[in-house]
Amino acid sequence: MAVAWHAPISLKPPLYGVSISPKRFTYQLIADSKEFGINFLPFEAAELVASVGGSKGSEVDKFQRFNIAKNKPVMTAVPILEAAYAAYECQLVDDRSYGDHRWLVGEIVAVHWLEEVFTPDEVIDLDKVSSILYLGNELYVTTSRDTIRSLDRKVYGKR
Amino acid sequence: MAVAWHAPISLKPPLYGVSISPKRFTYQLIADSKEFGINFLPFEAAELVASVGGSKGSEVDKFQRFNIAKNKPVMTAVPILEAAYAAYECQLVDDRSYGDHRWLVGEIVAVHWLEEVFTPDEVIDLDKVSSILYLGNELYVTTSRDTIRSLDRKVYGKR
Repeated sequence: MAVAWHAPISLKPPLYGVSISPKRFTYQLIADSKEFGINFLPFEAAELVASVGGSKGSEVDKFQRFNIAKNKPVMTAVPILEAAYAAYECQLVDDRSYGDHRWLVGEIVAVHWLEEVFTPDEVIDLDKVSSILYLGNELYVTTSRDTIRSLDRKVYGKR
Repeated sequence: MAVAWHAPISLKPPLYGVSISPKRFTYQLIADSKEFGINFLPFEAAELVASVGGSKGSEVDKFQRFNIAKNKPVMTAVPILEAAYAAYECQLVDDRSYGDHRWLVGEIVAVHWLEEVFTPDEVIDLDKVSSILYLGNELYVTTSRDTIRSLDRKVYGKR
């Protein structure tokens, strides 16, 4: 599925959280398998994101329907997409109800990434790959690499 | 403080989550007051974000030091920044340990926003305001409004 609400939540250990409605087919898959994958796709894959977001895994095999190539996971059985510039394999460590969604927390047990799209400082290199940003209401946008600014908080905090 | 790890997590009721290290002064303020504000600032305020992120509330009054103008909250006593194009007043409903951070969940009890920077569909209008995106390693970037694409998931899911 395509998820809009997600965030890293701990460095040590590395934990990642994602908010999913319990009505979604994906929720049941994760609750049963106790693991999930997080795939970060480039802006060029926006149609794929919309396709995956607009179809139901209970009705169709999305991998087959949308011809989605997979790489092999190393620590789990979660789907790792070939189109992803980075992906996490997560083992479920918490599943909690907040309002109308479930908050699923996974420990990142393996990371896949295209080394060439990250800088030596391990930041995404926007000259090499563009991220997908979801604005809501079916609107997608990407970053403007020409606007990058480096603002050292140690310097600015002392102003 | 400036926060990089945060997400909406429920629509009904409206809940918002933020990940903060318990070592931060802000964490103690929220644990004591049981409320917090979320302020969304435009890209033009990136220096302010770096300044707030690089200084300590235990050592300095950031509002005074950085000349930060505030608007009046309506349901809480949290800081609502005049420079924000949108802001939430939240009442703390959960405070939970995940690894080296705390996961703070607030119910949004009041919303402040500049009506003119949102579309009739309640999506941010990138012709009117640019969001701040934090890449890590002191790097900030904004969106490229020329890249916006509307991809109806109902159409793409049926392909």
